[in-house]
Amino acid sequence: MPPTPRDPRFEARVRASFARQAFMETCGARIASVAPGEVALDVDFRDDLTQQHGFLHAGVIAAVADSACGYAALSLMDSESAVMSVEFKVNLLAPAAGTSFRASARVVRAGRTLTVCAADVRPRGTDGALGEPIAVMQATMMALRDRPGLTD
Amino acid sequence: MPPTPRDPRFEARVRASFARQAFMETCGARIASVAPGEVALDVDFRDDLTQQHGFLHAGVIAAVADSACGYAALSLMDSESAVMSVEFKVNLLAPAAGTSFRASARVVRAGRTLTVCAADVRPRGTDGALGEPIAVMQATMMALRDRPGLTD
Amino acid sequence: MPPTPRDPRFEARVRASFARQAFMETCGARIASVAPGEVALDVDFRDDLTQQHGFLHAGVIAAVADSACGYAALSLMDSESAVMSVEFKVNLLAPAAGTSFRASARVVRAGRTLTVCAADVRPRGTDGALGEPIAVMQATMMALRDRPGLTD
Amino acid sequence: MPPTPRDPRFEARVRASFARQAFMETCGARIASVAPGEVALDVDFRDDLTQQHGFLHAGVIAAVADSACGYAALSLMDSESAVMSVEFKVNLLAPAAGTSFRASARVVRAGRTLTVCAADVRPRGTDGALGEPIAVMQATMMALRDRPGLTD
Repeated sequence: MPPTPRDPRFEARVRASFARQAFMETCGARIASVAPGEVALDVDFRDDLTQQHGFLHAGVIAAVADSACGYAALSLMDSESAVMSVEFKVNLLAPAAGTSFRASARVVRAGRTLTVCAADVRPRGTDGALGEPIAVMQATMMALRDRPGLTD
Repeated sequence: MPPTPRDPRFEARVRASFARQAFMETCGARIASVAPGEVALDVDFRDDLTQQHGFLHAGVIAAVADSACGYAALSLMDSESAVMSVEFKVNLLAPAAGTSFRASARVVRAGRTLTVCAADVRPRGTDGALGEPIAVMQATMMALRDRPGLTD
Repeated sequence: MPPTPRDPRFEARVRASFARQAFMETCGARIASVAPGEVALDVDFRDDLTQQHGFLHAGVIAAVADSACGYAALSLMDSESAVMSVEFKVNLLAPAAGTSFRASARVVRAGRTLTVCAADVRPRGTDGALGEPIAVMQATMMALRDRPGLTD
Repeated sequence: MPPTPRDPRFEARVRASFARQAFMETCGARIASVAPGEVALDVDFRDDLTQQHGFLHAGVIAAVADSACGYAALSLMDSESAVMSVEFKVNLLAPAAGTSFRASARVVRAGRTLTVCAADVRPRGTDGALGEPIAVMQATMMALRDRPGLTD
């Protein structure tokens, strides 16, 4: 049973806020899907996103998973709230090899102030199929209210 | 008492490996200092590294702190080891506002296989002084040996 | 598709090792189920396990979830390995109110040295049904080999 | 420069709240020191607190470090707030061998709602001296206000 969004315009808010995350554009990340409490992002392998062994840098993986978690959380927040990352923890399960990667986040619990999310990141091979997760994240997001100038 | 590096060439290895992290160059990050068990990296605020509210994206903060932890760990590893991130956890303490940011990592415990590191990230204001941490990280790094093609 | 255990005697090993965890007996925790890569533990609410507001102490929740993760990991390890916790991270989602609690852990990825697990902890109400998770954990376990005296 | 407590009665509140944590008494833990933003707890090695290899159970270490973090946070909260653990992450650095253990926590950042703390746990040998940390924790605590019946 999917959770009920507090704001029926949740998808437009998520997409507009994501579009303002300049760093996601820098990484080439884009939204794959938005549903209440669930957001997936895609990012392609690129040479300028790698670590020293030629795999995707753990920081890119964390960045995309963090954004996916943040927008999964925002999708359930009321229209007055902006979302901010409180903390996240990521386990890197395998070298990030693949042609692209999908970070899929879902809300585990949506509170009034804090929302806890989980995400995994799966590689896509040359055949286009998603493989086993190369990373998992557990994250806490916060709803900020009454901060002039801070929206979504 | 600083720890004794197992490889006297630790600084050259750290600098050469960092130079191969294309994603650090993409972010504009560079090495501020290398010492046994301690590495600091600097990254400037740039509009293309921001999240939706105009602050540095948490993913950039995590990426730079992760790299600093990885190289702090590598600085104490033997010459046969390559370093890989096992996991990290970051708490975002305040919005990442500043002209630049310094991620300072140190080894908490260097084991044969696993090394645990801690890092903080401090903003630099227009006066050039480092402020209070805007993020803290606790991370686990792994020494990989006998993996053909994987070095440092 | 459940993972294949490397040691067909995995269940006996898990049960014997758990029986040696004196602290689990101190908490009144017991094994609810053992399957390849999945272990569930139960613990009852008791007044001597509480924090200052009368709920189960977060430390008890973490302890039981950690043990469940450790034994989920051990269930897939070879017969030469002992299991040890490297690190874990727990999010407390709601006050731990209930008559008993079930910690359910599963292996996310089983490597030769490191195994990553996820767990949740659910309360049981007076009607006996399990409720929504009050905690989630992400944990890393390590296989120790060739340590005289350390088994399972 | 130690932080200024918002409530001059912080020490009495910490001690009274700790005295209500029945689980700490079950573990034999007691307060070693209370200062603004810093709390240390001691716990003795006991056979009924061990894991399968005879070391202190990681859950006991986490429980005591979590309580230390919670009270370090409470020491800086206003008199209207009760403290609750949001999440914590612990790295186990070495087997918990020793005659007793000291968990020392300090506030890294005290916000109005969330407080981030760091802790380490050090063993005491037969000579009475504290050794190198066997665990480090990074934790988030929350100030709860206006919850009838929830204090400190």
